[in-house]
Amino acid sequence: MTHARDGARRPRTTYHHGDLRSALLLAARSLLDEGDVPTFSLREAARRAGVSPSACYQHFTDKKTLLVALAEQGFDEFAEAMRLAHENTRESFAEMGIAYVKFAVERPGMFRLMFGHAVADHSRSPHLLEAIARSTWLFESSMKTSRNARTGDPVAGLHTWATMHGLATLAIDGLLPGYDAVLLAQALAKKTRAWT
Amino acid sequence: MTHARDGARRPRTTYHHGDLRSALLLAARSLLDEGDVPTFSLREAARRAGVSPSACYQHFTDKKTLLVALAEQGFDEFAEAMRLAHENTRESFAEMGIAYVKFAVERPGMFRLMFGHAVADHSRSPHLLEAIARSTWLFESSMKTSRNARTGDPVAGLHTWATMHGLATLAIDGLLPGYDAVLLAQALAKKTRAWT
Repeated sequence: MTHARDGARRPRTTYHHGDLRSALLLAARSLLDEGDVPTFSLREAARRAGVSPSACYQHFTDKKTLLVALAEQGFDEFAEAMRLAHENTRESFAEMGIAYVKFAVERPGMFRLMFGHAVADHSRSPHLLEAIARSTWLFESSMKTSRNARTGDPVAGLHTWATMHGLATLAIDGLLPGYDAVLLAQALAKKTRAWT
Repeated sequence: MTHARDGARRPRTTYHHGDLRSALLLAARSLLDEGDVPTFSLREAARRAGVSPSACYQHFTDKKTLLVALAEQGFDEFAEAMRLAHENTRESFAEMGIAYVKFAVERPGMFRLMFGHAVADHSRSPHLLEAIARSTWLFESSMKTSRNARTGDPVAGLHTWATMHGLATLAIDGLLPGYDAVLLAQALAKKTRAWT
């Protein structure tokens, strides 16, 4: 039995190249979901993926590189959430706002990583910039249309964004105890429709 | 000259008890203003205050204790900002929202500390709880009045809070480049007045 446990703990080094990267990202993702951005190390991600730290360094030179790769994944998922919200409704920007809050409460660690400043100074990473551009163009163009098509108010779309971002942030930081943030977003979206 | 410089670097141990605590808080405050919550150590605060780490530990058992004391200061300053906004205007909740954003952009590190989750698990600290209660009762009671006195909408005040919190967070995380967050808050407050 002892031998079997020791065996299970031994770093796995038989991943194919791409599989190892995916396994590391998956491990880091679960660490991210458990806590705050700065609380895990590259070494910890390697341990969770069951590989040696040196195998990990073949794919990610440091923790920031790993965080940037995670944020890329997050922005791809964000793009998909926005696309669905856009497709399914006519009131698309308000619906996108609701989907934005839902995304944050379901993935608080990822949301903090994507919109916080942990990866901000890595914004020169071309891959991350591409992922951000891919995922936010629909949100941003809807924000602009929202502003132009209705009252001509130049900050109406920005107002909705700020409201939804605030709601998401307050919710994941535990400042809205007893409230369901997605229901609040729906109520606020209704009002937003009334005045934009 | 060399002697004089060495002398200036030597830890100062002649503070009076209360003065040392204030000096440490001041040093930590300047470190907080320079970066993110988790980036400085208790040892670093001691070095900046020009005292030995052991002198520091007489006042703060660990970094969290120091952060809680800093957050207490922040909530006292927040209370004063809210009080001024309330006194000077009739449209007090919208004005408080503007003051809220102003507070955040002027003190981003402090704002993140106060409303983030770095001190959240220390919320059982009675002093911090008192400071929060002292500083937020005016904001909260205005938020509730704002809701009741106008349309009876149960989430109108919360909506304004979320909007201002979102604007503050987006601004200090660098997501509103080219915008003046306080001017945006003023524009949004005008609209808020129109629909609450």
